[in-house]
Amino acid sequence: MSSSKALFKAFKESNIQLAGHGKRNVKVLKEAFHQVDGDLESDIYGSGKIIEDFQNKMAAFLGKESAVFFPSGTMAQQIALRIWCDRKNVKKVAYHPLCHLEIHEADGLKELHHIETVLLADKTRVITLEDVMNMEENIACLLLELPQREIGGQLPDFETLVEISKYCREKRIQLHLDGARLLEILPYYQKSAAEVCGLFDSVYISVYKGIGGIAGAVLAGDNDFTQESMVWKQRYGGNLISLYPYIISADTYFDQRVDKMDQYYRDAKDLANRFNSCHAVTTIPAVPVSNMFHVHFDASKEEMEHILKEIMETSNVGISGYVRETSDHSCNFEVSLGDQYESITEDQLNSVFDMLNERMKKIKN
Amino acid sequence: MSSSKALFKAFKESNIQLAGHGKRNVKVLKEAFHQVDGDLESDIYGSGKIIEDFQNKMAAFLGKESAVFFPSGTMAQQIALRIWCDRKNVKKVAYHPLCHLEIHEADGLKELHHIETVLLADKTRVITLEDVMNMEENIACLLLELPQREIGGQLPDFETLVEISKYCREKRIQLHLDGARLLEILPYYQKSAAEVCGLFDSVYISVYKGIGGIAGAVLAGDNDFTQESMVWKQRYGGNLISLYPYIISADTYFDQRVDKMDQYYRDAKDLANRFNSCHAVTTIPAVPVSNMFHVHFDASKEEMEHILKEIMETSNVGISGYVRETSDHSCNFEVSLGDQYESITEDQLNSVFDMLNERMKKIKN
Repeated sequence: MSSSKALFKAFKESNIQLAGHGKRNVKVLKEAFHQVDGDLESDIYGSGKIIEDFQNKMAAFLGKESAVFFPSGTMAQQIALRIWCDRKNVKKVAYHPLCHLEIHEADGLKELHHIETVLLADKTRVITLEDVMNMEENIACLLLELPQREIGGQLPDFETLVEISKYCREKRIQLHLDGARLLEILPYYQKSAAEVCGLFDSVYISVYKGIGGIAGAVLAGDNDFTQESMVWKQRYGGNLISLYPYIISADTYFDQRVDKMDQYYRDAKDLANRFNSCHAVTTIPAVPVSNMFHVHFDASKEEMEHILKEIMETSNVGISGYVRETSDHSCNFEVSLGDQYESITEDQLNSVFDMLNERMKKIKN
Repeated sequence: MSSSKALFKAFKESNIQLAGHGKRNVKVLKEAFHQVDGDLESDIYGSGKIIEDFQNKMAAFLGKESAVFFPSGTMAQQIALRIWCDRKNVKKVAYHPLCHLEIHEADGLKELHHIETVLLADKTRVITLEDVMNMEENIACLLLELPQREIGGQLPDFETLVEISKYCREKRIQLHLDGARLLEILPYYQKSAAEVCGLFDSVYISVYKGIGGIAGAVLAGDNDFTQESMVWKQRYGGNLISLYPYIISADTYFDQRVDKMDQYYRDAKDLANRFNSCHAVTTIPAVPVSNMFHVHFDASKEEMEHILKEIMETSNVGISGYVRETSDHSCNFEVSLGDQYESITEDQLNSVFDMLNERMKKIKN
């Protein structure tokens, strides 16, 4: 077995994991539906109580006129950008070089909509006000991702967001929020979702990241915008006859977890601190600003696969199922804190990180 | 209450319905998952045992190299046509004027792909070999829908299909099957799914029509074709992190119903015969060739709303929740037979159709 497969196996077989809410298995669905009456009628092609109630609840939570449930964020965000491009009759948008649309969607935005993209900032940092002020003005929409996932979940400070928002409104550039992990950043900003979303013209949130649903996304904005998004949802084949498997689970886990984001944030800071206390281990950001961060090892991918596997087998605590090589021949992995962390005892954590520190000290640099 | 609302209410409150498998409620999901182990792992972005096993099963059933599970037929079919257009570098496809892509998808094919459509036949009949031979040759793909749903589920005879397929292969025009209701026509053709699909280059089937799943579709063809379709599925935002709620229900109800299509077909013929025995009532087709047909009343929409409501309230048997006005001021509705019909007693049926016949005789023409 390759060392990467052995690592994955050891992670999967561990009793409990540092990150996440637990395994993505059928139990997630069954538990969400356990208390739901079998006679409850399905939503039908975007109509019906199940979908309308949840959309209204999300609109109120996000402080927007209305919201639409989508099967995926990929679909929702491409559609948002297309609408803003059509409104301004400019087929150009701006976002971070590591934006989901740029690197994870097989170029859907370009292939389906022929929208040109302008990349702001460099790959190692978040977009600043200066980046925005220096960008060409003939842009239909600027997308900001909060937190910026691919760089460990970094955030601009809230004042910067306010200033970017003000600038975009002056320049009549629409501002879209990739808020896949919006709930997860509210404890750091000490703002409500509506206060953050108030800076943006349109907002997407995921229901299966911190919320821990099965799949799906919510797109919110003015009524005109969401109405138009529903036409595109039909064009994409996203207006399924029944979306309730995703909606009911999203609603259930939203209620269960919306008030736990504070705890995930505190746990992320605690866990990052433990990693940073180990030799040759650092996190990005050094102090998390959400429930997530990246862990960097000053060691080769293969060395770390070996080390992490051993620690997981000894401790029965899952650290990661993979590490990915970085350009400087070190390696990293991503952590997003969830329900599981609080179930791990202080003794278990101390033991895991004592082992990690000891093993890292022995690596030749 | 308007007469159309009163009709809908009476239908919903009826104990049992002539058509369908029963109510589209949460029980459909709960029953499919009742026996499923909670520890079963989710599919992840198109990978994993749940999705791969079902795709392999469907590929074998359809007699194709491989199959891909999609959230919707809308998405699957647009993608199929796009692939064939790209292969031939011709942005033009041909299909029936009442094709799903032409009338039910908010012009997704045109808006997302700028594909031109050539409409064959007229709205009242199926596409013939002559239509195909007379069409311009610079077409990337011809789509045939079997049965042609919007005209009551009509079918060409199998020989015609064989000839159309042969012609298209000679002319290097790809042939795509809209087989939303493919299973439902096999008893009439007395062919296996693979025998029908063998005439086509690509095939889509729905998992929530006769099969009675929750939502979703399968697209099948050669490996090259399905591989490319997966790239487009990602572009569309259809490659969800978890599709298992749809896949497990599709698989469950496929197994339950694949061998019941014969019965639905026989029941459809029986039910159509009962309608045709009533004064001023006809079905299209006169003798069904699948589990479906349309019922036409030589009476106004409002008259029929009144009559059907009364019969349903008296008999407690649901006939239809709507009638739609036709251009000649008569009206119709659609029937698709499913599990429910066999639970209705002969006495109940006789009583319903005696009432209908009596009421129809009293209408002034």
